[in-house]
Amino acid sequence: MMQSDTSRLDAQMAFLMEADRLKSVIRATKLADGSRKETTAEHSWQVALFALTLAEHAPEDIDTAKVVTMLILHDLVEIDAGDAPVFGEHDAAAIEAQEQAAADRIFGLLPEDQAMRFRAIWDEFEANKTPEARFAKSLDRFVPPNLNLANGGGSWVDYNVSFETFETRVGAKIRNGAPALWDWVRPRAAAFFDRLGMR
Amino acid sequence: MMQSDTSRLDAQMAFLMEADRLKSVIRATKLADGSRKETTAEHSWQVALFALTLAEHAPEDIDTAKVVTMLILHDLVEIDAGDAPVFGEHDAAAIEAQEQAAADRIFGLLPEDQAMRFRAIWDEFEANKTPEARFAKSLDRFVPPNLNLANGGGSWVDYNVSFETFETRVGAKIRNGAPALWDWVRPRAAAFFDRLGMR
Repeated sequence: MMQSDTSRLDAQMAFLMEADRLKSVIRATKLADGSRKETTAEHSWQVALFALTLAEHAPEDIDTAKVVTMLILHDLVEIDAGDAPVFGEHDAAAIEAQEQAAADRIFGLLPEDQAMRFRAIWDEFEANKTPEARFAKSLDRFVPPNLNLANGGGSWVDYNVSFETFETRVGAKIRNGAPALWDWVRPRAAAFFDRLGMR
Repeated sequence: MMQSDTSRLDAQMAFLMEADRLKSVIRATKLADGSRKETTAEHSWQVALFALTLAEHAPEDIDTAKVVTMLILHDLVEIDAGDAPVFGEHDAAAIEAQEQAAADRIFGLLPEDQAMRFRAIWDEFEANKTPEARFAKSLDRFVPPNLNLANGGGSWVDYNVSFETFETRVGAKIRNGAPALWDWVRPRAAAFFDRLGMR
């Protein structure tokens, strides 16, 4: 049975206020000006803006609105699970279990029909199988190298990353869903690593 | 004539990297936990999440994707014009002129067809005439009171706001595009102002 409008709104507001905590999750990537590390809330806005702006470069027909929705929701699990920097060492299975539990809890704050709908979008993103998920995942990987290029190396320097590691852990994922964007950033990153003597 | 794909992408990337500066614009509203003031980038994500979650409470049929697009773009002008806190004293005409100039410059970084498309969405938001713009504007006003309620008063206390001022400057604008959300937050705000003796 559908909840009354008031208790639906109560549940939605509980979810939204819990989501505010994404402003306190700090990522490994610094702002373009290098002044500090970004928050996951800021990143979520930025990657959604990248999707709106770069949708035409997707290699397949995509529903841009769905990509944007995915990206607004994609990191909410970090409220419980934290951010796992791409160049850090992780137990992938442990992180996945934490993120699944976080999705259960956080989307579970919503009215049931909406919880299922948002969860399905997040599951689709994680599974990385549809054109929308592939493009969204690629954008998620494409933003940080551009910030690193702007701020003098950022997480590449902090984690002492080689160009080969960058190509393997990041490049392959950008290329998978957005080859045109990989073609654009790869030579810029290669030249940067050369200049820093990190290649 | 359409630009080549590479110069289109160059222009789009120039726009996107300029947009990164929205992470350095500080708003008057504090996080729900009161720990610091939020950035406009964080706010832009949050209000887009509110739109995705609360779209069913719009009083008219709306295109949710358009509302979300509006909200992702709506504050980019603050990169040049800064944030004008709702309870501050402002020269409205001067701010509008600054924001128009900012929109010219910032959207002008994009390829021309896309600059016109994004600018039209921003103009529609500012004009506040379509159902999507009205709902988006109301959400933009609805988020901060909920953060203030969570963090102990926030900008209401900082600006020594009366309930009457809140109703006039904020309430009327929430009610205009989202009466159900005003009905939800009004009694909570009224009780809060009563407790603080600010009513």
